[in-house]
This record gives sequence, structure tokens and C-alpha cells, in this order.
Amino acid sequence: MRTKKKKEAAVVSLCHFFAMAATHWEDSVKSLKGVILDMCGVLYDAGEDGGSPIPGSVEAVRRLKASDLQLRFCTNETQATREEFVAKLQRMGFDISVSEVFSPAPAAVAVLKERGLRPHLLVYDGVVPEFDSVEKANPNCVVIGDAAEKFSYQNLNDAFRVLMGLEKPVLFSLGRGKYYKEDDGLKLDVGVYMKALEYACDIEAEVIGKPDPMFFQKVLDDMGIQSHQTLMIGDDLVNDVGGAQHCGMKGVQVRTGKYRPSDEKHPTVTADGYVDNLAEAVDTILKLRGQ
Amino acid sequence: MRTKKKKEAAVVSLCHFFAMAATHWEDSVKSLKGVILDMCGVLYDAGEDGGSPIPGSVEAVRRLKASDLQLRFCTNETQATREEFVAKLQRMGFDISVSEVFSPAPAAVAVLKERGLRPHLLVYDGVVPEFDSVEKANPNCVVIGDAAEKFSYQNLNDAFRVLMGLEKPVLFSLGRGKYYKEDDGLKLDVGVYMKALEYACDIEAEVIGKPDPMFFQKVLDDMGIQSHQTLMIGDDLVNDVGGAQHCGMKGVQVRTGKYRPSDEKHPTVTADGYVDNLAEAVDTILKLRGQ
Repeated sequence: MRTKKKKEAAVVSLCHFFAMAATHWEDSVKSLKGVILDMCGVLYDAGEDGGSPIPGSVEAVRRLKASDLQLRFCTNETQATREEFVAKLQRMGFDISVSEVFSPAPAAVAVLKERGLRPHLLVYDGVVPEFDSVEKANPNCVVIGDAAEKFSYQNLNDAFRVLMGLEKPVLFSLGRGKYYKEDDGLKLDVGVYMKALEYACDIEAEVIGKPDPMFFQKVLDDMGIQSHQTLMIGDDLVNDVGGAQHCGMKGVQVRTGKYRPSDEKHPTVTADGYVDNLAEAVDTILKLRGQ
Repeated sequence: MRTKKKKEAAVVSLCHFFAMAATHWEDSVKSLKGVILDMCGVLYDAGEDGGSPIPGSVEAVRRLKASDLQLRFCTNETQATREEFVAKLQRMGFDISVSEVFSPAPAAVAVLKERGLRPHLLVYDGVVPEFDSVEKANPNCVVIGDAAEKFSYQNLNDAFRVLMGLEKPVLFSLGRGKYYKEDDGLKLDVGVYMKALEYACDIEAEVIGKPDPMFFQKVLDDMGIQSHQTLMIGDDLVNDVGGAQHCGMKGVQVRTGKYRPSDEKHPTVTADGYVDNLAEAVDTILKLRGQ
């Protein structure tokens, strides 16, 4: 019972910390050394034709790059290889390179090789080449990504049968997002199918991508800075903002992409700040830093 | 804290009750007044061609009907109308009529009409006629059944968008099963997609069908007997056996259908007995009753 009380107290103080943190993101701007940007919903809106940049975002990235802040991009995008994805962003006008982008598929490949696992893949066709170097015959785990239309009943059932055939089923989910926004409306994300397979097989998936702290830590390591010196800007309150806060970063939500007004009254996650879009966030940051 | 302790004590005594109940199902056979049979996995195995009867089950149903016990059938089947479903069983040789069969779709129709709800349906084509009498324009709730191949990404996303467009999303799930067995292997059931939508929309579904106590109660009311006078026989440990036990009935699991040996070591549900198949269960019951 004592342990339970301690845990409850810890949760309360954690919630208190988050509540305290809210509304003060501007106060920490001067001590920032780096910024991490989510991509879909912050830089661009996804769509059938590849999507289009959110007004002001191309210029905002250019201004951040010209500042003294480090900049990285962190996405749970798993519909294309990182190379193709970055090329798309470059065509939209963004100043961005592959080495600045952190996405789940390359991180998953590293984990699979480290643990000698052979995946059954349920991912979008475009991201399959990321797994070229991984042995896939006689699978002993399942990897799911944002497979979109490939999440057919047949394909989900095939993944389910692989898991049920394993003595100790291992499921990796490239992110745990609920949905994202495309031009024509909201679309179900990988987390929804992760929950489906978790329930079907009575297992818990290992998440690779945001909000996994290890995933964020790799970005911080690459910049060589500490979490309290870093600001995350995203449109996903739970996975971007909450995930970053959980690691000790500040988290700001943009009112673009999948943002919904109800996010600002979320029962467990309160952003350190809300801005209308990336342009406003960058404008505020650079003004406060006198740049 | 006191309430929590009381709750914990209640859970412990409930678990104790279930543990006590186990292994003694034969002791209660003489006081039985009725039997409820699950259908798929107990009477027949499903399959592409409509399935085939499990050896001994046709004769077992005939013997039960000739005894002094009441008999009802209780299924979460939602791939056909009750009429078509019963006709299929009759073609297999079962002595069964529509009025003896309890299935979720007619129960759902009653709930929808009672609450003035207009459903967006994500169900198998074959069961759609059950909902003919229900207004469906401008939907203000979603009903999902075992839609099998109709659980495409597009269809699940459409149901998700309907829910997200409602001020207070209402989701009905016709059962909460994880999977069932067809001739060619295990197949994902409606509960998996219920969990997917619950997670996506941050809601809790209302389950219509086993193991919902109200669903079992309607069967008991129809027989005019009490739960402690009733035995449920099913292949689904959680939904058939656990659900029935939760209502005060005895629950026996058959080792046919979706049964897996690991069921006999389930962490929270222990059947009152295990039998190889329905024929063995009926043989035991009738012998102990001297019939």
C-alpha cells in the first residue's frame, strides 16, 4: 500500500509539474540550444498528391537554420523511405537533408539486427526498401507501420496468425499515433492497428518512434545537447508534445495539421504553449532571442 | 481508500468463488433446468463453404431436446440474418428453430429503436437486412459486427470519421470476441476492431452480445429459469464461459472450435469443467440425470 501511495504522489507531482510548465514556454526560449520539428501537420499537410506546405513553414525552417539554434526533424512517417520522404520535402521548397531527419524505420532495422529478429512486415509499400538489409524468411516477429490501405482484413489477419504461431509473440509498432490529417480528412494511424493486434494476441507492442523516450534521446544525442535545452514543436499533443515533455523538453503544439480545439483541454497532457502555426512559433523564438 | 479496500476484497472473494466453482460442474448437473449452447465451434466449424458440423453435435442436440432440460442457443454470429443462419444449421442436420436462437443483431435493433439512434453500419453484407426497419440517414452512432473482409482500411476509416464527427460518439460492438476458427485457421473477430476504434476515438464501446450480462439475462428470461439452474457450454473461455459465470451460471468449455490448450491455464477465467466436445458434455449430463 505504501508503494501505491508513493506512486500516486509521484503521479500527482508529475501532473503538477506539467501544469506548472504550461504557459511558460517563452520564458525558456533564451536558454534553448536546439529545436526539434515534427513534419506532417507542422511543415506540410499530407494529401493524395503528396501534400502541400503549410503557409509560412518553408520560410520558418529557413530562418531557424540561419539562427544559432540546432535543428532536427523527427517524424513517425513510415509511408516512404527517408530518402524519398526528404526529396518530397525538398521539392516543396524546404531546406532539409536526410541526416537531419529521424524516422522509425531505420531505428527499427537497427533493433531487428541487434536482436537477430526476422520481421513479417505490415507496412506501406514505399517503406519496404528500408528493410532490404534485414533477413525476412521464417519470421519470428511482426513489424507494423502506417500501412494505410494495406491494413486490409486479410493483411491484418496474416500478421495476427504469424504472432499467434510464435511461442513468445513480438510486435513492433512504428509509432502509436491514433490518426493524422490528410487533405480530405482524418486518417487512422498505426497505433490503432497496434491496439487491435495487442488485444487479439494479449500482448504489448514495443513502440519504435515518438513518443518512445529512446527515440527522442537519439535526436538529442545527435545534437549533443540536453533535453532541458530543447524545444519540440508538433501537431500531435500526446506523441509530440507529451512525449517530449516526458523526456524533459518543452513541448509546443501548433494549431495546424491534426490539431483539434479539444486538445487544449486534454485531461493528461498540457502543452507548454500553443501557436497558430510554425511561422508564429519561430517568429516568437527569434524575437525573444533578439535575432 | 476504504472503498478501494472493499473493492479489492470483493474481487478476491469473486476470484475465490470462481476458483471454488471449478472442477465441480458435474455436481450441479442434477439441479439444472436449462442449457445454453454457443454455436460456432460447438455445433459446427465455420468455413468458406458455410462450414461443417462437429462430429456428434447433431445427435447431442437431438438428445438434449428429448430430455427434460430447456435448451437455447446463444451466438455472437453476425455474418447472416438469424433466419439464414438457422436455415444453414438445419441443412447441417440440427433440430433448431429461429425462436430458440439469441444473436446480437436483433438485440441491437431493439436498443437503437429504444434510444432513437440512427446507425452507420460496419457489418457483414449478410446481416444488413436485420437492420431494414431502422432509420439510417444522418447517422448519430456506429454499429460494428464481425464484418470480416469488409473491415478494410477505408471502411474502418469511414466509421472512425462518423464517430469523430459526433459531439458524443456512440459505438456499439456486436460482441467483443478476439478471434474465431475457420477451416483454414484463426480469423480476427469484431472485438479487435472495437478496440481499434475505442483507441482511435478515446471512447468505450457498448457491447451487445456475449459476454454482456443483459444479453445472457434475456435468454434466461425466455426460459423462465434462474442463472444457477443453467449451464453454458462454449468454446470461448472468456466470452462464453467467463461471461456465463459472471451471471451466476456454470460454464463448461469444449475442446473444439477456437479452444487452445493454454485456455486451461488462463490467468483470470477458470471453467467449471472441460470436455472434449459437445457429445461428451451431453453424454455426461444425461447419464448423471439418469436419462
